[in-house]
Amino acid sequence: MNHQPQIMNQSIKVGIIMGSTSDLPIMQDAADILTQLGVDYEITVVSAHRTPDRLFDYAKTAAGRGLKVVIAGAGGAAHLPGMVASLTHLPVIGVPVKSSNSIDGWDSVLSILQMPNGIPVATVALNAAKNAGLLAAQILSTADEQLTQALIDYKNDLAKKVIDSASDMKAKGHPSKYE
Amino acid sequence: MNHQPQIMNQSIKVGIIMGSTSDLPIMQDAADILTQLGVDYEITVVSAHRTPDRLFDYAKTAAGRGLKVVIAGAGGAAHLPGMVASLTHLPVIGVPVKSSNSIDGWDSVLSILQMPNGIPVATVALNAAKNAGLLAAQILSTADEQLTQALIDYKNDLAKKVIDSASDMKAKGHPSKYE
Amino acid sequence: MNHQPQIMNQSIKVGIIMGSTSDLPIMQDAADILTQLGVDYEITVVSAHRTPDRLFDYAKTAAGRGLKVVIAGAGGAAHLPGMVASLTHLPVIGVPVKSSNSIDGWDSVLSILQMPNGIPVATVALNAAKNAGLLAAQILSTADEQLTQALIDYKNDLAKKVIDSASDMKAKGHPSKYE
Amino acid sequence: MNHQPQIMNQSIKVGIIMGSTSDLPIMQDAADILTQLGVDYEITVVSAHRTPDRLFDYAKTAAGRGLKVVIAGAGGAAHLPGMVASLTHLPVIGVPVKSSNSIDGWDSVLSILQMPNGIPVATVALNAAKNAGLLAAQILSTADEQLTQALIDYKNDLAKKVIDSASDMKAKGHPSKYE
Amino acid sequence: MNHQPQIMNQSIKVGIIMGSTSDLPIMQDAADILTQLGVDYEITVVSAHRTPDRLFDYAKTAAGRGLKVVIAGAGGAAHLPGMVASLTHLPVIGVPVKSSNSIDGWDSVLSILQMPNGIPVATVALNAAKNAGLLAAQILSTADEQLTQALIDYKNDLAKKVIDSASDMKAKGHPSKYE
Amino acid sequence: MNHQPQIMNQSIKVGIIMGSTSDLPIMQDAADILTQLGVDYEITVVSAHRTPDRLFDYAKTAAGRGLKVVIAGAGGAAHLPGMVASLTHLPVIGVPVKSSNSIDGWDSVLSILQMPNGIPVATVALNAAKNAGLLAAQILSTADEQLTQALIDYKNDLAKKVIDSASDMKAKGHPSKYE
Amino acid sequence: MNHQPQIMNQSIKVGIIMGSTSDLPIMQDAADILTQLGVDYEITVVSAHRTPDRLFDYAKTAAGRGLKVVIAGAGGAAHLPGMVASLTHLPVIGVPVKSSNSIDGWDSVLSILQMPNGIPVATVALNAAKNAGLLAAQILSTADEQLTQALIDYKNDLAKKVIDSASDMKAKGHPSKYE
Amino acid sequence: MNHQPQIMNQSIKVGIIMGSTSDLPIMQDAADILTQLGVDYEITVVSAHRTPDRLFDYAKTAAGRGLKVVIAGAGGAAHLPGMVASLTHLPVIGVPVKSSNSIDGWDSVLSILQMPNGIPVATVALNAAKNAGLLAAQILSTADEQLTQALIDYKNDLAKKVIDSASDMKAKGHPSKYE
Repeated sequence: MNHQPQIMNQSIKVGIIMGSTSDLPIMQDAADILTQLGVDYEITVVSAHRTPDRLFDYAKTAAGRGLKVVIAGAGGAAHLPGMVASLTHLPVIGVPVKSSNSIDGWDSVLSILQMPNGIPVATVALNAAKNAGLLAAQILSTADEQLTQALIDYKNDLAKKVIDSASDMKAKGHPSKYE
Repeated sequence: MNHQPQIMNQSIKVGIIMGSTSDLPIMQDAADILTQLGVDYEITVVSAHRTPDRLFDYAKTAAGRGLKVVIAGAGGAAHLPGMVASLTHLPVIGVPVKSSNSIDGWDSVLSILQMPNGIPVATVALNAAKNAGLLAAQILSTADEQLTQALIDYKNDLAKKVIDSASDMKAKGHPSKYE
Repeated sequence: MNHQPQIMNQSIKVGIIMGSTSDLPIMQDAADILTQLGVDYEITVVSAHRTPDRLFDYAKTAAGRGLKVVIAGAGGAAHLPGMVASLTHLPVIGVPVKSSNSIDGWDSVLSILQMPNGIPVATVALNAAKNAGLLAAQILSTADEQLTQALIDYKNDLAKKVIDSASDMKAKGHPSKYE
Repeated sequence: MNHQPQIMNQSIKVGIIMGSTSDLPIMQDAADILTQLGVDYEITVVSAHRTPDRLFDYAKTAAGRGLKVVIAGAGGAAHLPGMVASLTHLPVIGVPVKSSNSIDGWDSVLSILQMPNGIPVATVALNAAKNAGLLAAQILSTADEQLTQALIDYKNDLAKKVIDSASDMKAKGHPSKYE
Repeated sequence: MNHQPQIMNQSIKVGIIMGSTSDLPIMQDAADILTQLGVDYEITVVSAHRTPDRLFDYAKTAAGRGLKVVIAGAGGAAHLPGMVASLTHLPVIGVPVKSSNSIDGWDSVLSILQMPNGIPVATVALNAAKNAGLLAAQILSTADEQLTQALIDYKNDLAKKVIDSASDMKAKGHPSKYE
Repeated sequence: MNHQPQIMNQSIKVGIIMGSTSDLPIMQDAADILTQLGVDYEITVVSAHRTPDRLFDYAKTAAGRGLKVVIAGAGGAAHLPGMVASLTHLPVIGVPVKSSNSIDGWDSVLSILQMPNGIPVATVALNAAKNAGLLAAQILSTADEQLTQALIDYKNDLAKKVIDSASDMKAKGHPSKYE
Repeated sequence: MNHQPQIMNQSIKVGIIMGSTSDLPIMQDAADILTQLGVDYEITVVSAHRTPDRLFDYAKTAAGRGLKVVIAGAGGAAHLPGMVASLTHLPVIGVPVKSSNSIDGWDSVLSILQMPNGIPVATVALNAAKNAGLLAAQILSTADEQLTQALIDYKNDLAKKVIDSASDMKAKGHPSKYE
Repeated sequence: MNHQPQIMNQSIKVGIIMGSTSDLPIMQDAADILTQLGVDYEITVVSAHRTPDRLFDYAKTAAGRGLKVVIAGAGGAAHLPGMVASLTHLPVIGVPVKSSNSIDGWDSVLSILQMPNGIPVATVALNAAKNAGLLAAQILSTADEQLTQALIDYKNDLAKKVIDSASDMKAKGHPSKYE
């Protein structure tokens, strides 16, 4: 399976789309973690409501263009992830964005999460585009040992940072007998 | 403008669609009130998530087929009304349906109501398909004097029923000096 | 039907009202989009709770004064749209405003949206006065070909702006093979 | 002040209104507790949305007809209590009713409670028409010593019933050393 | 009944209490509107949770000290209004305060509003201490013609200000044919 | 510390109170688990709103009567746990009860949980009186080795039941290679 | 990549776990759709709270035992999916279950969805175990052409059923000119 | 029992843990009140999701290391308190933290509070780490007379501050006849 990572480095397997460029500051987190993990991606704007034809074309051609996973972020009545999922057999990850027109994020969350049976969207937490990127990598890693190792390393690094921060707290005088 | 009502009686101006036949017991209320007001309609199933191509075709051909208003009902992550609105310039009325997979109706309401600026959906109350039918008739009545009169009569009848129920309560012994 | 647009340009067909001048920064969006689409409007303050007589008079005389649609915006326990709807057969569009005395907008949304059967209010998203203006134009366009064209142009322009923003993102270095 | 109770026993000082006869099973609780406390009332149906003229007339004539307090119950987008409050200087008590078209009662509660400054509605708990009746009696009791005593007796009786139920539990074998 | 207003001017009939001095900026609105209407009041801090003995004493002595109405404001798990209501037969008005430890005000609202049958609290909107003051005045006005007139004047003034603001909008160029 | 368990077996250390006998079916779960763990308790009705004097007396005498923990359950605007906590220095465990007058339990939860700093209530899940009993036992076990062992045994038994149910599923044909 | 499907047909790649056998009626939907799609699975009970050791062991050994995806369902304070995700680098799909101790499902949804950055859980709709199964298949299909085709067939079948139901509605007399 | 306070002063009986150092500004309140009451504590970072092994070790060794109570604070999908409770028989106090990735705190509250029967978490209000510290002290005080007295003194001081603030308000001119 050692040819997989190479293919992955040669072709884009993750498509990141968002309903508006105003979502870019959030959605860039997905791109950044993919870069960190060595996964190529493409990122663009596809609005379900303002460019439905672009949505149809993007979603219908996604698998043919080599994408393996689509990450879609949107706010308010967020139809982008669900509509992409209706138009492709690829796994779709939805990122609820707390946009300016959102009611505390509830609309974004519910309109992405509560998909009817038959058309799943893998929903992550509000604004959690980083987790969307990680989930995309996890999906690809099911057939990619090199990426699997990168994810294991990432997890170990997360733990190390927590333990370092605990040591740091202790060094600053917060009492702790626990090592 | 007296030719408008005649045209209306000859052609279907309201399209009623729903995400699933399980929504029919709710959505039939829209059809019934339109029938009562003398407005022709068509009614069918169009699922945003299971039949996106049908959604695209239905919405894009709606105006050309003579429809003036579309009523769309759906539950859960309800994308049907908003996606129709994205694909046609016609006014779209959304009916949030409290389906079995809904979280108390909140998901249906928010995913229909909270549309971004540029693509409105005229949302009515949870399960209020009757009001969707009335709203469609009100929209058509802006260019239809006969329908206007039918709506005025309907309103008067609503009032009369309340006053009759008040008389009935009094007759049953509930004290009231107010006439 | 070619005489309709001319009539519309000569008379005010949309009335915009709000519960308080503090709602004006929101409600002005409805006026602005109507202006952009070439639809005349009037705009004033009518408080359901502080000026109920004005509310009654405004709503009862609306159709007689030539209005075809009323847009009503209010916050908190927002009774203005529903009460106007109870007093006229015209279509009424409700704009929930997230006023300072609102609980995250939920009160505004629910007290406008959840109208009983018989008296619909076409509710738009929280603070979405622009969509209220667009919806009013869509309603008028059902008997106005010129306005229909303006709405089609508006929709095309929305799409163009998204595609331009996608090109802009790509120009700034965000990777995308999708055209 | 001893003449007040006599006047009260001779005339109706509390008006109970509801948006629909479907609210009667709830609203009857207000009537029953008033009867128990010896306070005369009238009770009828006044729909804000279906009979706005009746609402206006009822509210504007309430004080002149001798009413001192109005209890108004409604469900969904419940505008009745607030609109009565806008039309009379009398204290208005609002009862949110969890009607069939309500979203778990939230719409009823928020559209009654969240009145803007200037026009208060004394809101009680969801479906708590009994408390509305008690509150009306408390209001009248501020100028009625006999009614004050009736309320004190009622309160003592509430306490006695709790203590009796505690004794009953103990008698049934539930352990308690507390007397 | 003309002696009532005189008594009122001579004695304090409204007690305003709050759970913490941090609630004073909100609760002062109740005091100010009472002052404006010529109603004497007292205002102090009574914490249900930190000074339960003070709460008991205050509430139990309230009627004996001549109070006719108690206004109680509190935030978070707001027990002050309900506990006062449990300890006196006087009408109690509850003001939910959106304090720093509140979850968007929901806790304050629900813990004041949702009293069990038998012990009503007249709840006003979140932070609406002004309405609490008005409601207290309305309650007193049921036996006070002078105060009744003051409330009628207040209501008329509210309406006048709205109409003035409408004129002002028109003068600033906002189009309106409605007078 | 071996004398502690003996004392505990000789005297009542946990007081269970509830706002109404209608809460008994829920609150009995606390009594039952305490019985199972060998902890004596007393159980009775104390209504914050209907018997405030009883509440005061119960809470103020609790420590003196030998109680070490108080479990208080109530529904709706649930003030009982918080008021007990205001009147005693003992740890108080609050059980939000989803009573008939509750809005889906949110009122019970928030009015018990959201106590201000200075007066904690140890809140458990909605209707989770069993967990309240367990928590009371855990508190007592901090100075009772025998009770500690009983809790460890209880925990082990919980785990054993899960593993048994997994074996049972497998025996019924649900595929699992995991042991 | 043609060896992948073969491997998949020979070994279990999806583990389905749930917090309690009471979740089985919901979680069986995941198993059923996987069976329908020809994907082997294992299914068992793992309680985060009652069997934390089993949780640790199951999650830590999952990848080594050949699993590629874990589906975890739980209700109330649902920690199972998130904790599995913390213990394995495999993609984890979370199913919020509306268990008997849930507050309308909100607790299940939020405690599964709102994972911190670094540890994603792919959350599906409330009770939507069928979608969890589909999502697992979509993930596996990224390296399995045969499974990809099965998913495409499944999607086509979904669409066909909608179109059949539309024909059925028409046959029963519901008017529709749209084909 | 006079040896207990000494032991307590010699050994750490309260462990405070949090999911991230970003929670420290909140959680420090627990430490500060314990210091004020003379209770030793340790405080460190333990992330359920990033350091599950550390979580397991910390919780499983807690009782053996002499801890009597664990305070755990976390935000978002907050699994730390519940997982600690699953791994130790000690009482666990949960502090829902309104972290940056939280939906208004609802996720933190529900994922800590709504534990299944068998594994209680003593939940305090959102961000109420001070109350968590007080509750820990109350728990320890059930076997510590000196600490009991410290808590009684603390309570008296709370009351005194309220009464002082009332005097202060009066001194600043706020009218009050109540002493």
